[in-house]
Amino acid sequence: MKRLNLTDSEPQPVLIVGSVAYDHIETPYASGERILGGSASYAALATSYYAPARLVGVVGYDFDQEHVDRFVGRGICIEGLQRDETGATFFWKGKYHENFNLRDTLEIQLNVFETFRPELPENYKDSPYLLLGNIAPELQLHVLDQVSETRPYVVADTIDLWINIQHEQLLQVIKNIDLLVINDSESELLTEESNIILAGQKLLDMGTRAAIIKKGEHGAYLFHPEGMFATPAYPVTELRDPTGAGDSFAGALLGYLAAHHNTSYDSIRRAMLYATATASMTVEDFSCDRLENAGVAAIEQRIEDLIKLTQLS
Amino acid sequence: MKRLNLTDSEPQPVLIVGSVAYDHIETPYASGERILGGSASYAALATSYYAPARLVGVVGYDFDQEHVDRFVGRGICIEGLQRDETGATFFWKGKYHENFNLRDTLEIQLNVFETFRPELPENYKDSPYLLLGNIAPELQLHVLDQVSETRPYVVADTIDLWINIQHEQLLQVIKNIDLLVINDSESELLTEESNIILAGQKLLDMGTRAAIIKKGEHGAYLFHPEGMFATPAYPVTELRDPTGAGDSFAGALLGYLAAHHNTSYDSIRRAMLYATATASMTVEDFSCDRLENAGVAAIEQRIEDLIKLTQLS
Repeated sequence: MKRLNLTDSEPQPVLIVGSVAYDHIETPYASGERILGGSASYAALATSYYAPARLVGVVGYDFDQEHVDRFVGRGICIEGLQRDETGATFFWKGKYHENFNLRDTLEIQLNVFETFRPELPENYKDSPYLLLGNIAPELQLHVLDQVSETRPYVVADTIDLWINIQHEQLLQVIKNIDLLVINDSESELLTEESNIILAGQKLLDMGTRAAIIKKGEHGAYLFHPEGMFATPAYPVTELRDPTGAGDSFAGALLGYLAAHHNTSYDSIRRAMLYATATASMTVEDFSCDRLENAGVAAIEQRIEDLIKLTQLS
Repeated sequence: MKRLNLTDSEPQPVLIVGSVAYDHIETPYASGERILGGSASYAALATSYYAPARLVGVVGYDFDQEHVDRFVGRGICIEGLQRDETGATFFWKGKYHENFNLRDTLEIQLNVFETFRPELPENYKDSPYLLLGNIAPELQLHVLDQVSETRPYVVADTIDLWINIQHEQLLQVIKNIDLLVINDSESELLTEESNIILAGQKLLDMGTRAAIIKKGEHGAYLFHPEGMFATPAYPVTELRDPTGAGDSFAGALLGYLAAHHNTSYDSIRRAMLYATATASMTVEDFSCDRLENAGVAAIEQRIEDLIKLTQLS
């Protein structure tokens, strides 16, 4: 079984646009070289536990077929995964500090990502759910243009880089999405508000219909016109590499909504628990390895644990 | 109405032993001089919203009757509040940094606390609930000796100072209590374990029957033989002075258990939500002012908010 058995109806397809990358990760305890990374990779693998994922991204001449097979192995549609033979795959090198509280970017090589324009395959355009993973806001806008008629439910992520260098385009993205999912340091940078409650309200004022602020090991907060909702993180005892946790969270969250074809406040709240449990897999190993191989039963167990951890009986 | 109307049966009395103090608090935004402080003051006021509180502590010749009247005004029994005319009241001066993440102790004058031995009035000894607020572990042990026959349900708190200078006595306390309530930096110091889950397990290994690790604005974790439970903090937007939040949490928690006369895992989990809501009052103003004056309706509203924030419908 590839997917969680959540509902009798057929899960809706989720279109995922983002980066596919080679990462080089250093932590205080170990390191991983030329490992599969990128916002779309993590998100698509996470989504694949809930709904059909349709991937849009670009890789270079050096991208191993083995990784493409990993996507296919989890049922992810790769029709939108372009291969650009003129350059190498996007590369990121990062280093985590003690306790994983901080990380430094040591090296970025955009490579084929420098000229990438995400063009949606014709038969992707009817996707009722769209995840704009962390890429340049101008590219996110270009994707939104292509779905202006079908108007899917849109979740978007971003990082500090884009808040700093493509601020206007990012504000334009935020005005046109249903759910913004960012971490707490990014929300503080974007809203200039350190109190998470006030920051969340400001995000809604910017035009997104709802927002989730992720606090890493301290969980996540949902801000929605119908109310606020908070979840703690899943209590992980063996943290190996936090890279991709946020992308996995967003991918699982949207996958859950697509599986139920329901984007109500109640559905989003439940989706947060599933997303939290799913993302907890990602941090237990380098790259997408644990997320890819966890299996449905292990994820279901974590969801059950998380419900016991948070819900009164 | 002085108390929350939680149950048809009569709330059980809660014995609270700890410090009663004058504090001088400086924050980045304001300061408060010679304001009512101390672990027992906050805890007793918090308990008073749930159950009859019996206070044991000491004050000096300079302690204003006005503050005694505040305790009495909330129905707290002060028979165990000694006045030692030979010295001044315990004094603590502290300063909070930007964002309230760190605080420095600028001055401590033990005064009458230097020779204080908590002696329980005879008619306090049958109290079925006992809160050992933050005082020296040797004094906590002295209290435990006096209730060795009645064996109340015991909650204890401590701070880094005692972990460092009365380590053996503190371990002895932990072996003889039902619930240890400490914050995350203290639990890390005590267990030498930075992962909160592993730290919680180590606390149980030390002999306490259950433990709550408080993470300040990030909520609290319960570790219990029957499972783990996590609550976020109540989302406060106007933080003025965090002093006493932990004492208020412990006082409200034990008050809730005493009100229901039920110390089951399920009861403790519910108590955490009530304690979180009650403690959130404390941080909105200097000293015990907001906690004392909040009133039952405002606390009930916060509990309702917190249930909406955390519980799926």
